[in-house]
This record gives sequence, structure tokens and C-alpha cells, in this order.
Amino acid sequence: MSDSCLVEILKESRPVFSGAVVKLSVDTVELPNGKQATREVVRHCGAVCVLAVNADDKVVLVKQFRHPVGDVLLEIPAGKMDMDGESPEQCAYRELAEETPYTAQSMRLIQKFYTAPGFCDELMYLYEAMGITENSELETDEDEFVQTVLLSRQEVRQAIQDRSIQDAKTLIALQNWLLN
Amino acid sequence: MSDSCLVEILKESRPVFSGAVVKLSVDTVELPNGKQATREVVRHCGAVCVLAVNADDKVVLVKQFRHPVGDVLLEIPAGKMDMDGESPEQCAYRELAEETPYTAQSMRLIQKFYTAPGFCDELMYLYEAMGITENSELETDEDEFVQTVLLSRQEVRQAIQDRSIQDAKTLIALQNWLLN
Repeated sequence: MSDSCLVEILKESRPVFSGAVVKLSVDTVELPNGKQATREVVRHCGAVCVLAVNADDKVVLVKQFRHPVGDVLLEIPAGKMDMDGESPEQCAYRELAEETPYTAQSMRLIQKFYTAPGFCDELMYLYEAMGITENSELETDEDEFVQTVLLSRQEVRQAIQDRSIQDAKTLIALQNWLLN
Repeated sequence: MSDSCLVEILKESRPVFSGAVVKLSVDTVELPNGKQATREVVRHCGAVCVLAVNADDKVVLVKQFRHPVGDVLLEIPAGKMDMDGESPEQCAYRELAEETPYTAQSMRLIQKFYTAPGFCDELMYLYEAMGITENSELETDEDEFVQTVLLSRQEVRQAIQDRSIQDAKTLIALQNWLLN
């Protein structure tokens, strides 16, 4: 079977909300069997996250309160792409510098993935920061509240096993680190 | 520093949309510095995904068109939790049976993670299906269009390296498989 027998065709899109971060529409699609179905779709500008490991072989994480889930999560540095034509790679340098005391000499793309493709088009770029150095001061956004946490490979292995890493992109980045 | 200096306090929540799959609200929060900020929040009922490996040490994947991203993705079997009190574990058995020709003898929770905690509360449960057996017929939903694909460890390693796995939960499950 080819992929074409799986494809849904867009018949109508009804815009519901257009905000600073997300847009929402209710779409009508035609299924491969000719029936129609409704799809609630969240559109997002895309985001970048960064696996940064320092010279002591410790990974740089940030603790941050996430209002949607009502909890403080331990995550790799990450952020949305600015609307003004910022590239994913530029965004990776900026977010690492804004959220942690580290800057990178270069960035290498590890993965590109959709975070929740069942209802949302958010595409996440995962970079590895190469040659990171620690700075004296954070280039932080004054309305951003984050704490830097450094973990060894053994601590990461334990944290994954304990299920204390609760963020998808962070699990992907840390498992990638352990596999390589 | 304790986590309390990171916490945002909800001041107001304005409901924007309430659908079959997601709800959307625009919330006003008070930041740790006393300033106010706006948060667009997508609420989701939660979902389950299943890592299923057969007796030949091949992982069971499904190819499926995802309207939000306009593409056919290769994913592990997954689905939303039904509203009528279905448990995550029950959902795991159901989704595996609906989307693939396999059923499981038992389920083991591997991870629980948020797919996009910056703007969405979707919580994803990842189970490992134990003792899977192949059935003659799919217990499929007639409006669900999926194709089963089996991959060996070596094929999974290659697919991850090629960046041809484009779905976050699937990357987490497959990396977990390779690590164990």
C-alpha cells in the first residue's frame, strides 16, 4: 500500500483563535473512505531546544515553572522561535545564553520532531551545543525565572529511571546523550 | 534557592474554546517579580502510547496521516484517553489492539511526560506491552487509517540517525528500547 491511501484532504478551516503563541482552527477533512471528520488544530511558530554538556561531562538543565501543568519542571534550555526571521540555529544560541550561564562555539542539529502531531504542528529542533564556556553573567530576560542545574551521566540515568524527567524534549535529548 | 521563587500565580482565566479534543484559555498570571504576564493555555485530556516488541525483536510501528502537520508519520501506537473513566493502562491495551494486529498480555509503565509543557498540559503515558501475540484480524475503528510497520533494532538505529522518526513520543520509546 502506498501512503496516498492514508491522506486526508482539507475541505474547510474555521479560525477560532489567533494569539501571540498559538492559533486554533476547527478543520473539516475528507477521510480516505470519503467520509468527513472534524480536526481541532493548534498552530505554533516552532521552537528550539539545546543539549549542552560542559567540560566536566555534566549536562546543563533548567528548572522552570510551567503554568499549563502547574509545576516546576527540569528541562533542557529551550524557547520559541522569534517571529522576525530568526533561524533555528540562531534561536539555539540565544536561548542557551538567556537561560543558562553558558554560551556555545557552534551548534549541531541532532533531531527535528513534532511534539504533539495529533492536534498541533509545533516542530521542535534539538541542537547539541559544541564548545560551551561559562560566562560571569546571564544575558537573561528580566521576566524569565529559571535556575540552572548540572547533572552527571549517572544522575541522568537515575532521573530517567525514577521518572523525574517529565518533559518530552528533555527525555529525547538526555537519552540521545546516553546513547552516544 | 527553593522552587517557590519560580512559581507563577493564576490571577484570571478567560475561556476561549472548548472542543472535543482540546480546550483553550488565555490566562493572566503574576510572575515571581510581581509583574503580570499572559499565558495561552491548551488543555488536553491526556494520551497513551505503547512500545510493543514482537518475538522476532521487531518493534511495532504505525504509519498514519497527521492533518496538523500535513504528512504521514511513523509512530508507535497511541491514542487519547476516552472521557468515560478509562484508565491509562486500559487505553494502552485498546490502542494497541485497534491500531495493530497485536494484543498484549500485560502492560508496564515506562514513562509519563508532558509533550509541550510551555503551552499545553497534555500528559502522555508510555507503556511497554509485554507478551504480545498477533491476531488474525484488526479490531480497528472504521474511520482510522493506519498501516503497521515492523522494524529491527538496526533499522530503528538507522531511522533515528537519518532523522526519519519525526514524532516526539516515538523517539522517546525507541531510544528507551535501544538503551535497554
